[in-house]
Amino acid sequence: MNSFGRIFRVSIFGESHGIQIGAVVDGCPAGIPLHENDLKEDFARRRAGGIGTTPRVEPDLPRIVSGVFNGKTTGAPITIVFENTNTKSGDYSNLWDHPRPGHADFTGQQKYGAHNDPRGGGHFSGRITLGIVAAGVIAKKIISPTIVSATLIEAGGSKDIQAAVEQAVATKNSIGGIVECVCTHVPVGIGEPFFDSAESLIAHMIFAVPATKGIEFGSGFAAAAMKGNEHNDNFISATGKTETNFAAGINGGITNGNDIVFRVPIKPTSSIGMPQETFNFKSKAVETLVIEGRHDACIALRIPVVIEAATAIALADLCLLAQQKPRIV
Amino acid sequence: MNSFGRIFRVSIFGESHGIQIGAVVDGCPAGIPLHENDLKEDFARRRAGGIGTTPRVEPDLPRIVSGVFNGKTTGAPITIVFENTNTKSGDYSNLWDHPRPGHADFTGQQKYGAHNDPRGGGHFSGRITLGIVAAGVIAKKIISPTIVSATLIEAGGSKDIQAAVEQAVATKNSIGGIVECVCTHVPVGIGEPFFDSAESLIAHMIFAVPATKGIEFGSGFAAAAMKGNEHNDNFISATGKTETNFAAGINGGITNGNDIVFRVPIKPTSSIGMPQETFNFKSKAVETLVIEGRHDACIALRIPVVIEAATAIALADLCLLAQQKPRIV
Amino acid sequence: MNSFGRIFRVSIFGESHGIQIGAVVDGCPAGIPLHENDLKEDFARRRAGGIGTTPRVEPDLPRIVSGVFNGKTTGAPITIVFENTNTKSGDYSNLWDHPRPGHADFTGQQKYGAHNDPRGGGHFSGRITLGIVAAGVIAKKIISPTIVSATLIEAGGSKDIQAAVEQAVATKNSIGGIVECVCTHVPVGIGEPFFDSAESLIAHMIFAVPATKGIEFGSGFAAAAMKGNEHNDNFISATGKTETNFAAGINGGITNGNDIVFRVPIKPTSSIGMPQETFNFKSKAVETLVIEGRHDACIALRIPVVIEAATAIALADLCLLAQQKPRIV
Amino acid sequence: MNSFGRIFRVSIFGESHGIQIGAVVDGCPAGIPLHENDLKEDFARRRAGGIGTTPRVEPDLPRIVSGVFNGKTTGAPITIVFENTNTKSGDYSNLWDHPRPGHADFTGQQKYGAHNDPRGGGHFSGRITLGIVAAGVIAKKIISPTIVSATLIEAGGSKDIQAAVEQAVATKNSIGGIVECVCTHVPVGIGEPFFDSAESLIAHMIFAVPATKGIEFGSGFAAAAMKGNEHNDNFISATGKTETNFAAGINGGITNGNDIVFRVPIKPTSSIGMPQETFNFKSKAVETLVIEGRHDACIALRIPVVIEAATAIALADLCLLAQQKPRIV
Repeated sequence: MNSFGRIFRVSIFGESHGIQIGAVVDGCPAGIPLHENDLKEDFARRRAGGIGTTPRVEPDLPRIVSGVFNGKTTGAPITIVFENTNTKSGDYSNLWDHPRPGHADFTGQQKYGAHNDPRGGGHFSGRITLGIVAAGVIAKKIISPTIVSATLIEAGGSKDIQAAVEQAVATKNSIGGIVECVCTHVPVGIGEPFFDSAESLIAHMIFAVPATKGIEFGSGFAAAAMKGNEHNDNFISATGKTETNFAAGINGGITNGNDIVFRVPIKPTSSIGMPQETFNFKSKAVETLVIEGRHDACIALRIPVVIEAATAIALADLCLLAQQKPRIV
Repeated sequence: MNSFGRIFRVSIFGESHGIQIGAVVDGCPAGIPLHENDLKEDFARRRAGGIGTTPRVEPDLPRIVSGVFNGKTTGAPITIVFENTNTKSGDYSNLWDHPRPGHADFTGQQKYGAHNDPRGGGHFSGRITLGIVAAGVIAKKIISPTIVSATLIEAGGSKDIQAAVEQAVATKNSIGGIVECVCTHVPVGIGEPFFDSAESLIAHMIFAVPATKGIEFGSGFAAAAMKGNEHNDNFISATGKTETNFAAGINGGITNGNDIVFRVPIKPTSSIGMPQETFNFKSKAVETLVIEGRHDACIALRIPVVIEAATAIALADLCLLAQQKPRIV
Repeated sequence: MNSFGRIFRVSIFGESHGIQIGAVVDGCPAGIPLHENDLKEDFARRRAGGIGTTPRVEPDLPRIVSGVFNGKTTGAPITIVFENTNTKSGDYSNLWDHPRPGHADFTGQQKYGAHNDPRGGGHFSGRITLGIVAAGVIAKKIISPTIVSATLIEAGGSKDIQAAVEQAVATKNSIGGIVECVCTHVPVGIGEPFFDSAESLIAHMIFAVPATKGIEFGSGFAAAAMKGNEHNDNFISATGKTETNFAAGINGGITNGNDIVFRVPIKPTSSIGMPQETFNFKSKAVETLVIEGRHDACIALRIPVVIEAATAIALADLCLLAQQKPRIV
Repeated sequence: MNSFGRIFRVSIFGESHGIQIGAVVDGCPAGIPLHENDLKEDFARRRAGGIGTTPRVEPDLPRIVSGVFNGKTTGAPITIVFENTNTKSGDYSNLWDHPRPGHADFTGQQKYGAHNDPRGGGHFSGRITLGIVAAGVIAKKIISPTIVSATLIEAGGSKDIQAAVEQAVATKNSIGGIVECVCTHVPVGIGEPFFDSAESLIAHMIFAVPATKGIEFGSGFAAAAMKGNEHNDNFISATGKTETNFAAGINGGITNGNDIVFRVPIKPTSSIGMPQETFNFKSKAVETLVIEGRHDACIALRIPVVIEAATAIALADLCLLAQQKPRIV
């Protein structure tokens, strides 16, 4: 399903080389100021252009075509669309028989058969995350004063991100990275026990972002080697502030008011300029595949803002849900 | 929400010291053999009893009270219930003012106010995972021949699990661990692009399991330091078999037929025998808290079967969903 | 699916001759007083016993087995179960080959195959509505001060219900009726445009009640012969009170504060004592079928309280949803 | 919520005088031929133009902007958009203080406050049903060979529809009507017990169509005056064919293969040229309101195709759901 959320429901659509991509955001409260310009900053962060990012640069000019009147949301579904302009579909024609390793060419073909759209990854393209970023801009307004901030903290195994990227470009290879996301000013009490825990919804959304390979909250994998007396976050104030924050601000699936902190590993971009030895489904033999076209040497550079958006969408749904106050009859 | 799934929908209910706990499983196809005895093995794996697990041992005798006739599922909702018998609610009376670090006492009180059930963690208790395990037994039958197998691969930072547990017990402390889960004989083509990716649904369910702190698929966090030419899983056969499996059997959110592999860090049990310095919300001061009662020194020992169940539930939903074949009009 | 609701989610389970039937109610706010005795009145209204109702009388003693502590809801899922005690499964053994007209014997067999539970209608039995009534008791508390009140206003085409029922009993036949439901003290502004209109959710739930054949709101079918100047409900006060109420308190899917009024036709009970000429799927011929067992001559007598419950459940979901107030950033 | 469906999920968006209106259709199988021209016929049936319909005529040229490649659906979400071109927003400026009887002006203002879009009914406009019709075209292909056919069978209380409409136009009044919908070649076994009964989903969708006041299946309201021996549909063949069809092809919420038949009353258009005495929320007095602008004298003329679409959408979701066959392990 290309929609997420029980109350704040985001649907995304589009293909890399299709006519339009976009998002429909339903369940957004009325009265939130919203203008195309509000999307500029996050779009610029996501956009390609610098070293290590693809030379395909789209203008990504959003049009808000429904749900906003006199500069504010009306309560009706908000639709934001983008035209695809800079498409070169010819680049991808031979990949049907020789699916690219690491991509969804093979699985898309298996699932959708001959009808799968192969142009630039079709609906599987990272370009579709533009809709997630657009919806994230709205979500960020809903969860205010909570602030979601994600940063690339390392790439290619190094904290010197710039150097690592330059080396990847030079070798026609690609590198991964780790994104850290911190949510501050989080209200106490959002998240639901078990299946709609705050971690469940955030993780659900994070794995909707292509190239993510994991997520760890707070202590994360380090928790496995810790002892209970180290790991327990002792309370130190009447507001629920804790001395440490290994819980990442969440206990029993519900926020405790401390920061939500998590890290997400990003795999190296699957498209690389180097030749790859992989099965040709037509010739039935392992053969050399060389991928032409325009690629990111380090897609992780562009992902932090997508992670922010994904997180804000999950939190917006939980925040709106938690506004249902207990009623004492 | 205490329910999960679009087609195979699992709802769980109950409290640690309540009358009954259980699960309702809706959307299960008719004709699947099911008997109370089928739950024995997984229940035994989850049950306490050995060193490092709580001395509270419940018989956990399941009753299937609906949805099964003549030993087979009927297509109607399947309800499985368990009576709570071995409850000692007196143990937990003073924790309202002095919430336990690492537990959901504080967040439960904040979210539900004075109405939160404090007895043994109430609805937040790990005991409620019994319903997940019960639903998992059914899910495992649905996804057959796919097999889900989870193992505790380290505890307390050591591969010598037994020694690590004994030390934790001796010091009245607790330790965490890492569970690895492998799914074999996975069909090609389950999972949906973006929001219902196979990773999204599995991660959603895994974070419904108390004490989980993260999840990584295949290469996971190591991917961040890898290069594209290392990370790409080259195809080596016409069935889609790959040479390596850093993708963990999933591309573009959709299974490619290779094994699904992921790892989950488990935090050390929050309840420890050692005294803890933490805020007393009545006296408004940091004071020493000593937790009486019965605890697990290493809850990670009991979690693999819950991870299996959570995974099988996610896969069952995706499998049933994927049976909707394309129709060429 | 045997569950309904986005926020206030009701799941029902059980079979006519199974072990337990019941309901799980998720998403109920904490702090609502709830005791088994609260169900007595509505259960008594639903229960058989009088003339025109089946001689099978179950005690219908509810057990609340989760979600309530110290007499109030805790915010966790509420589970209410009933044991089936008065079952005589032998009555129904020959209906597999000779499905009863008007019943779900044929469709159940077609959908679930040999695994369909034929005992007393299995999961299709009207007895399962006990779970709806139980959930309705909780829903009625949530929507308070809104009051939902349903009445049988005619039976067998006559306003003299008693006489019509007696005649049906005397002739071993059955009769239908019309239930009218009025909701008073309805808040303004619940319901969502289009797919979650107040009428959509109410109608969805009403058709979950067996034997319902239609629903009309306010002017209903009479509207088809009216003119706009007659049908428009002119406003007469600043609270939105209207002179007439053909809209049944709903405009654009959203409540306007006037009473919600609708009527539901109930078909005559399908089980009748008279012989019926219907196809025998074993002999492949139309043959006479005589249904033994215990039947209601006028099931409509017992349905008003189920209609109330179904309506209250739909309204509870919409009420909780509408508590999400606009936030002006 | 402006989305519907568990598997075949339709989301609609837009406002009467907004930039674009449209629909996103998720969960559509791959491989279904789809072209803009396929929408022409149903759009023509919905469009205004003849006597009794509004003089506002939009070209309604659809653009399929995602989800279709080489003339066939790809399995990705299908988005269909329409530009609004013929908007005259000036007509509606004074209706804020003097909401129109029968319209959603008042409820929209109450629900969304000052942010409600008042232009031509905003998101509540019947124009938004264009998205439903577009999705319906796709749904009709999915459910093929099932055919859904709706007809206006009376208007203004008369079977002489033409005469009734002419009289309404002449008097600047409006009239209602009754739409009958018949589904033929329906597969056996779609629909789920209780909450997702075939009637529940169809009725849910029908009440998403503005101006509908009720629905009755088969015998409908007449059932209330019938006897069991008359109403029971006796089987007459091994395929489940019945002698009568008072059940409208549905037993226990599940289709039995006979035609699904239902009728829907449509209220007279709320916008009329005649003056109306209704409350002015600014002056706080009942005053005369005269509605300028372009109206339908008989909106029921344009609704049959919307009813068809709504029905096909509900059936498509149930059909796709029912393809999950029992698996005998």
